[in-house]
Amino acid sequence: MKTKFLLLLACSLLFTIHVHAQKKAAPQAEADIRALLDAQTEAWNKGHLEEFMKGYWRSPQLTFYSAGNKRAGYDAVLERYRKTYQSDGKEMGKVAFSNVEVELLGKKAAVVRGRWDLTMSDGKKMGGLYTLILRQFKKDGWKIIHDHTSSDQ
Amino acid sequence: MKTKFLLLLACSLLFTIHVHAQKKAAPQAEADIRALLDAQTEAWNKGHLEEFMKGYWRSPQLTFYSAGNKRAGYDAVLERYRKTYQSDGKEMGKVAFSNVEVELLGKKAAVVRGRWDLTMSDGKKMGGLYTLILRQFKKDGWKIIHDHTSSDQ
Repeated sequence: MKTKFLLLLACSLLFTIHVHAQKKAAPQAEADIRALLDAQTEAWNKGHLEEFMKGYWRSPQLTFYSAGNKRAGYDAVLERYRKTYQSDGKEMGKVAFSNVEVELLGKKAAVVRGRWDLTMSDGKKMGGLYTLILRQFKKDGWKIIHDHTSSDQ
Repeated sequence: MKTKFLLLLACSLLFTIHVHAQKKAAPQAEADIRALLDAQTEAWNKGHLEEFMKGYWRSPQLTFYSAGNKRAGYDAVLERYRKTYQSDGKEMGKVAFSNVEVELLGKKAAVVRGRWDLTMSDGKKMGGLYTLILRQFKKDGWKIIHDHTSSDQ
């Protein structure tokens, strides 16, 4: 009888810990995701594209959609950023993210809705909206697995 | 001792059922989501906009991003569709979805990547890419909670 009681006690204790851990997980996840976006902004504004890319999943399965164009894989996404912002006559400018909303979609996935604005050295501005899907990986933490970016028209 | 054994047996049985239910859930979720998209296609091609809209979450929290424009709420999304495809001189045309990839992000959330193509009655074509976020609701099943749509440029 005593063993049964102890077993039940252990079960309820584990359950309580589990529920508590889940409740704590959400704010932590949001903080981690916002930190990732802040690190991306900082890296971009220093002109460090590879550092900026650390926010993305280093996988052939990473996807990037913009203006009808689909890039599949980390290398293709990096290549697109290089061509658009680092090739002859191009510049990265200064980026700012705003209206950022982080919504958890489960324990290990989230969607981020937000706005991006770029200001170039000559004062020229461009911007638009983005949707990011992120997953939390065991080893690497939160990473963007899909990016859909639009420009104002 | 017998009670303890029975308790442990019940626990492992429950765990097995739980794991089995999760494994079965994924193909069912994908099938349900693809059925939602098929129903949307069918409704659109009959010119039934309200029927098409049943794929969306009927909530002020529904969001729709396209070309730098953000609509918040079911009514605003419906209004945008009406203005773009049902106002004077406009038509809905025939829609087709292709390259549809459904990825579960947890037990009750998914992302859909795909391509949309519209053909108008005069043969004019337009198209682009979309990212949909869906959640599974207890009462209403799977619904699109966020839509980011781009047009080819």
